[in-house]
Amino acid sequence: MTARAYLAEALGTALLLISVVGSGIMADALTDDTALALLANAIATGCMLYAIITTLGPLSGAHFNPAVTLAFALRGEIGPGSAMSYVACQVIGGVIGVWIAHIMFDLPIFQLSSTSRTGVAQWSAEMVAMFGLLFVIFGGLRSRPETVPTLVALYITGAYWFTASTSFANPAVTVARSFTDTFAGILPAHAPGYIVAQIAATLIAVPILSWLFAHD
Amino acid sequence: MTARAYLAEALGTALLLISVVGSGIMADALTDDTALALLANAIATGCMLYAIITTLGPLSGAHFNPAVTLAFALRGEIGPGSAMSYVACQVIGGVIGVWIAHIMFDLPIFQLSSTSRTGVAQWSAEMVAMFGLLFVIFGGLRSRPETVPTLVALYITGAYWFTASTSFANPAVTVARSFTDTFAGILPAHAPGYIVAQIAATLIAVPILSWLFAHD
Amino acid sequence: MTARAYLAEALGTALLLISVVGSGIMADALTDDTALALLANAIATGCMLYAIITTLGPLSGAHFNPAVTLAFALRGEIGPGSAMSYVACQVIGGVIGVWIAHIMFDLPIFQLSSTSRTGVAQWSAEMVAMFGLLFVIFGGLRSRPETVPTLVALYITGAYWFTASTSFANPAVTVARSFTDTFAGILPAHAPGYIVAQIAATLIAVPILSWLFAHD
Amino acid sequence: MTARAYLAEALGTALLLISVVGSGIMADALTDDTALALLANAIATGCMLYAIITTLGPLSGAHFNPAVTLAFALRGEIGPGSAMSYVACQVIGGVIGVWIAHIMFDLPIFQLSSTSRTGVAQWSAEMVAMFGLLFVIFGGLRSRPETVPTLVALYITGAYWFTASTSFANPAVTVARSFTDTFAGILPAHAPGYIVAQIAATLIAVPILSWLFAHD
Repeated sequence: MTARAYLAEALGTALLLISVVGSGIMADALTDDTALALLANAIATGCMLYAIITTLGPLSGAHFNPAVTLAFALRGEIGPGSAMSYVACQVIGGVIGVWIAHIMFDLPIFQLSSTSRTGVAQWSAEMVAMFGLLFVIFGGLRSRPETVPTLVALYITGAYWFTASTSFANPAVTVARSFTDTFAGILPAHAPGYIVAQIAATLIAVPILSWLFAHD
Repeated sequence: MTARAYLAEALGTALLLISVVGSGIMADALTDDTALALLANAIATGCMLYAIITTLGPLSGAHFNPAVTLAFALRGEIGPGSAMSYVACQVIGGVIGVWIAHIMFDLPIFQLSSTSRTGVAQWSAEMVAMFGLLFVIFGGLRSRPETVPTLVALYITGAYWFTASTSFANPAVTVARSFTDTFAGILPAHAPGYIVAQIAATLIAVPILSWLFAHD
Repeated sequence: MTARAYLAEALGTALLLISVVGSGIMADALTDDTALALLANAIATGCMLYAIITTLGPLSGAHFNPAVTLAFALRGEIGPGSAMSYVACQVIGGVIGVWIAHIMFDLPIFQLSSTSRTGVAQWSAEMVAMFGLLFVIFGGLRSRPETVPTLVALYITGAYWFTASTSFANPAVTVARSFTDTFAGILPAHAPGYIVAQIAATLIAVPILSWLFAHD
Repeated sequence: MTARAYLAEALGTALLLISVVGSGIMADALTDDTALALLANAIATGCMLYAIITTLGPLSGAHFNPAVTLAFALRGEIGPGSAMSYVACQVIGGVIGVWIAHIMFDLPIFQLSSTSRTGVAQWSAEMVAMFGLLFVIFGGLRSRPETVPTLVALYITGAYWFTASTSFANPAVTVARSFTDTFAGILPAHAPGYIVAQIAATLIAVPILSWLFAHD
């Protein structure tokens, strides 16, 4: 992997977190209706996902997600060394993205979330969310690779609503969102539960999806 | 048909019901404005439809709907045995999807709906909804097959609003939604009326659409 | 032109009015917030426009709009006899679509609107709306014809908001909407003002757009 | 550059401002919920951006933005004389677009905004917004040029939410929006701060993006 690929992973994840956290702050400030805030949050996130996957896909594969990188590593499509560097870039980029969002909204840069997100229901939701994300990625890559940016963008926009956890589905995003005490935050103590669920779902999903989407 | 095709029908219908029922629960919990809840419900459903049709279309044809399978059977594009197996997979997948949604939102798994949805107006709405769904499928397949995922996704997103029944347009979805006493539910006793309307519309639509969209 | 083309114009315009009037009724019933109702109305209309233009375009050109037919006639791309038949099919289809919407929502079938929509500002808005619609159609046809369904759908979704008249931009739609006393209606006495503005804008737009979008 | 290219820049920027200012006026009039107004504003703007970039791209490159023109000039893809003419057309077109919006909504044509938009946080938000806009344009042009209309439309729709400034990201738009005392306005005295931030971000972005998106 080249330096450009690593920078692409960091930049893309930063932009993703700017969209998630920034739109949450804006929406929360403008309305008392939580559904409307979540709608704005979901739309803004989906828009950004389309943008970063389309533009950075040719540079790095556009993972922006340690669980996605793990899935590609399990399939042998990225080496372990590159995978670990990808994950580091994703986490660092994600946290920087949160901080940039705070700067733009004139909030203290360094924060820790106080939003409780835990329990078996939430973890099961993260497993469904993660399975579905890998499902659209590997399904799209098999049949129509040019649709992957749209698939991921629309899937996540929908998954904000149909999973009880609002679909983090990304360990780097989970870590980064523990660093903001705004709409999109997650209590740092609850981040590991989400991440374990995401990784468990990835380990389950990879063999199933590899069989389902195998070429005949 | 292969085992993968049957699994694709079950998995796709499960994911469809997760999106329909899950987003209904989430939206209903977050707002008192029913229009906003329906908007979230419609958007989440459309997003998922795009995802499952794009990814699973090459495996099974992406019916996820007994009425669609019936329409293809009437056109001789799927045999009666495969069609019946498809329908079984769709119904089973749909119900499992509802149960997964309940688990994610920490609700009792086994429920029956208490939401009344009946009457001539509602049934006529289901007939319009079903006719329109087959219209976009066969029209899209004729002219630009690659647009079918977008056509179905946008059509249903719109049809949540322009049909009085919010456009079930799918017997498997109707059965599955009778198993949830949440926003998207339908009283089990009222499901047969919807299903009869959907099948009647399919029987009317197939010859009309076969003529309309015949190749010259 | 064939019978299929005429049927396509009538069917497409009927489906368009079902989406415009039906979604207006639904949204108006579910919320007290007029902006939210208009958002649902705009999204449902855009979804249907994408569907009918994609599927029926290859059959009839997908005008669904007497002003669009006039524009093609002025460019010599449809003969005067066929054009007049198109307009008749569009108006008849549109009115039938309104009636179907009323049936679905259990309302009296025959209605006349009592919604005032008049004045120089509204008429100027209809002129802008109509110019913009022809702009996207002829601009899209010149450069990327496969984008026309998306162009028209998105343009109208936006134009619900950025024109003071909510962008009827269609004489057949204007006539049809005078037959419903619901959210989307227009007082019959005010329909002629809208239609004159739409036709005037068409007469102005055709030569300008023919020059602007001429091939070198 | 031809007269058609200049007219395309003026017309496209006028249409952009009609969508931004018109939808702001409409939404503000219909709801008390600022988040809902911003959502309508963002969607209408995104819809128009898709339309004008798709249709006018082949004529002028579809800049509609002095900072974008500056970026292309810095890359040597447009000469300084043409660039200055582009900027003039964009500013004039933008102001005319605002006036057309006022006419449509029956408001006084000549207005100056009284909406305060200033401070380091807002300026940093404009820098992020501008960087992101150039990022999607140059990233899209590198990998999949046909996606640029969608990229810009979705990026700006999202950026209304995730930047504290609601993402003007365009000096011509900033000037034009100082001429409306409605939802989308900006106090004329605060326009220069935004424009400086936009130009600074452009100067920073061009070398970074040229390296990032260089062909190997």
